[in-house]
This record gives sequence, structure tokens and C-alpha cells, in this order.
Amino acid sequence: MKRVKLVVAYDGTAYHGWQLQPGSATIEGELNRALSALLQEEIQVIGASRTDSGVHALCNVAVFDTDARIPAEKISYALNQRLPEDIRIQSSAEVEADFHPRHCDSRKTYEYRILNTRFLLPTRRLYTHFTYVPLDVIKMRQAAAYFVGEHDFKSFCAPAAVVETTVRTIYELAVEKRGDEIVISVCGSGFLYNMVRIIAGTLMEVGRGKLAPEAVKSIIDAKDRQKAGPTAPACGLTLVKYEFLEDI
Amino acid sequence: MKRVKLVVAYDGTAYHGWQLQPGSATIEGELNRALSALLQEEIQVIGASRTDSGVHALCNVAVFDTDARIPAEKISYALNQRLPEDIRIQSSAEVEADFHPRHCDSRKTYEYRILNTRFLLPTRRLYTHFTYVPLDVIKMRQAAAYFVGEHDFKSFCAPAAVVETTVRTIYELAVEKRGDEIVISVCGSGFLYNMVRIIAGTLMEVGRGKLAPEAVKSIIDAKDRQKAGPTAPACGLTLVKYEFLEDI
Repeated sequence: MKRVKLVVAYDGTAYHGWQLQPGSATIEGELNRALSALLQEEIQVIGASRTDSGVHALCNVAVFDTDARIPAEKISYALNQRLPEDIRIQSSAEVEADFHPRHCDSRKTYEYRILNTRFLLPTRRLYTHFTYVPLDVIKMRQAAAYFVGEHDFKSFCAPAAVVETTVRTIYELAVEKRGDEIVISVCGSGFLYNMVRIIAGTLMEVGRGKLAPEAVKSIIDAKDRQKAGPTAPACGLTLVKYEFLEDI
Repeated sequence: MKRVKLVVAYDGTAYHGWQLQPGSATIEGELNRALSALLQEEIQVIGASRTDSGVHALCNVAVFDTDARIPAEKISYALNQRLPEDIRIQSSAEVEADFHPRHCDSRKTYEYRILNTRFLLPTRRLYTHFTYVPLDVIKMRQAAAYFVGEHDFKSFCAPAAVVETTVRTIYELAVEKRGDEIVISVCGSGFLYNMVRIIAGTLMEVGRGKLAPEAVKSIIDAKDRQKAGPTAPACGLTLVKYEFLEDI
């Protein structure tokens, strides 16, 4: 028996998110199906980030146990042959038997990409959120600074979520202009349900002048989802980096 | 009666190319349909570059004549509401009545993007051609130099094409590394059928060491399609710039 860690990239456009859902195409479902067929035993992966419907990833992480004799490093190649083109294993490796991706310290970085042009560019519509309203990057950057550190992010959590605590730590939140896109990069130990998309939606309100940068402080203090901006659309969001503490 | 010029961006993934084809979705067909419905008269656009099935564009050009009283600049907004999301007009403007996009001097720039990573990245699969074989950019750049200038490009033309002459001029051909992509940019007055994709396929043969950079000279001289490399897949190709001589 060995435990294998997969690094998984996917285009979330066609999926109902990561998490297994009977009757719906999900990343977890596709991995379980392809692994079970490849290894000829029933496999259920444990995922690291349960990304939402339509969200993309360059490097989500999944682990599973297997008795199969195929070397762990070879699984990536064999598995890719059985997966649809919008899911691709980037690496596979054996890890310690007690490694659990959700029970160990990690840093995740998400990017939220905003296409800020006069008209939508079709070749980027699937991986950015388009808005023709000009956004002020300087003000968005000023607002971003208020998020950094340990805070109760209750105002930035979808109300339906059931969690022990809404306190989280953001290590870094950068807003940068990359050509005709504005990219929000947020690095943290973990995020609440919809947190990055609500942060992005709030920063866009600042960028278009509907909120002052300083307003973010009182929105955090309010601990009230109603005070924050809207949840930005899923297609703009990509999980771009996943570091486990031992790797850092 | 006025003549209107449209700048059109599209994701070619779902289309059988630019040119009208009964029974198949094409960019020209979608434009004719949406314009005719908007202006309440039968419209047939004249396209500048008849891009192939699966090829993308940021700025292809089409013109048409209309009696409608809507100001030319407003057509872009109204038309985008009637087009599918993978086609978007970037601008509309009135031009002289005798302006014809294929009968005037122009410079077109195409980019061919190669994703050169160990495994495919799903979020870029639609707009790049993936190969895990490491490519030598320096050698590709050496080979690229042989294409620049006026040449008979018969070796780089799909044999089925019927054309008066296979002589064309390439003003510039750059090969650059952009992160994990290799981007071939080629600027010319006009291109033969499949010419950019055959150039890309040939440069990839050089990059992987199957052809020496100097071999390109003798391939051009041979005037024989069989001597050149394969036609690289359509998805990697995007029309990125279109300049008419009066604009330059």
C-alpha cells in the first residue's frame, strides 16, 4: 500500500467544481473514475482545495492510496491518457502514508483576472472576468492592503457556509496591471467559501469608484456579508500555486 | 448608402473558419446573420483574411454597405448584442465607398503559440499548440531569418491552393520565449493557404533537431511542399494585428 500525491491542472468551464456530485461532471469524479479504471481497484481521492463550479486550477492537489505496483511517478502519464483534455495531471509522486492535503500547513495562491477592455476579447472570455468599466488600479491596491494579515473574514464568506471559525490569514494581496488585464493575486493559508471572489468583487467596486479604499476596513469590522461587494464570477478565478509547509 | 468597416475578434474553436459555408457555423455567416437582423436588410460582408477552421483573431476586418441610418460607430455595440460570445466587434467606423480590405496594401501579423511544457495545461489548450518535446529557440530563430524578404513560398503552401503567384514578402519573423510558451510572430503583406502553419511546423522540426536551421534555405529553393515540415495545428494560430497602408 502506498499513498500517492497528484498535482492536477484543469479548466473548470465544463465542471460543477471539484467535489463529487452524483449526476454531475466534477474533477473529483473524473479522477476517481480514471484512477479506478487504470489501477483496477476502487479509488477515492482526497482533494486539497474544493474549488467551485467554473473555477480553474494549475496545481490543485489530490492524494489516494493504492496497492498497485505501478511506480508512483508513472501514474501521471498513464492517467492523462484516460482523462479528458481539460484535466491534466502535472506530476505524481509517493508521499508518506499520513500525508493529508487538508490537514497540513499550506499556502495557496489564487489569481483573479479581470479583462478591462472596451469590448470582450473572445479568446480570453473563459479565463478572465470582463468589464468595460475602467478600474483604478492604484485605489484597488490601497484597498488591498487592508485585507493583509489575520482577520475575521465573515463579511467575505458566502452566508451558507458552515465553518468553525471565519478567521483567516492573508499573507499577500497584490493588484497588478498585466497588459489589458488587472490581476489580483491573493496568498493565504486557507480561504472561506467564495472568499476570493467576494474580495475581487469588493476590489472592483473600489476600482470603479463606488467604494473608497478605506471602506474595506469597516467592511471587515462589520462581519456582515451584506456590506461587502458582490461575488465576482467564477471564470476569472484560478488556483495558481499550492505550497505545503515542508516545501517552503 | 455608406460603407462600414468592422474590426472583429473571435475564438475560432467552434467555427469552420471565416468563409461562408452552407450548413456550417462560420464567422462570415454569423456576421451576415446578425447584421441583416440588426439593419433589417440583407447584408453580406467582405472579409479581409479568410482564416481557416479553428484559427483565432483579435482584429480581422470586414466591410459592408448599408442604407441604415444608425451611426457607423454605434453598430459595434448593437451588433455585439446579437452575436455569440465567441465573436466580438472591437470597432465599427465609416470608410470611403471604394475601400476594399483585400484590394489595398496591408500588413498582417500572425502569432503561432507553442506551449512547451512537460504536460498540457488545460487552460491554454484552446489557444496554443502543446508539445512536450523541448524546442531550441536559438536554432528556431536562426532558421526564421531565412524566411524574411521576398521569396517564392511554394514549399509553404497547401498544394490544393489555386493562386496566381506563390511569391510573398515576409517583413519580420520573430521567435521568442514568453514564460513557458514559444511564440512565433510573422508579419507580411499576405500569406498563402496554410503558409504560417507550415512555417510553424517547419520551425518546430528545427527546434527539435530534426532539421538544421540552414535547411530552410534549400526548402524554400526546392519549391516543393514535400520538403517543408508538417502543417502545425490550427488552434495555435491567431491573427493579432492588421494594418492598412494608410494607417502605417
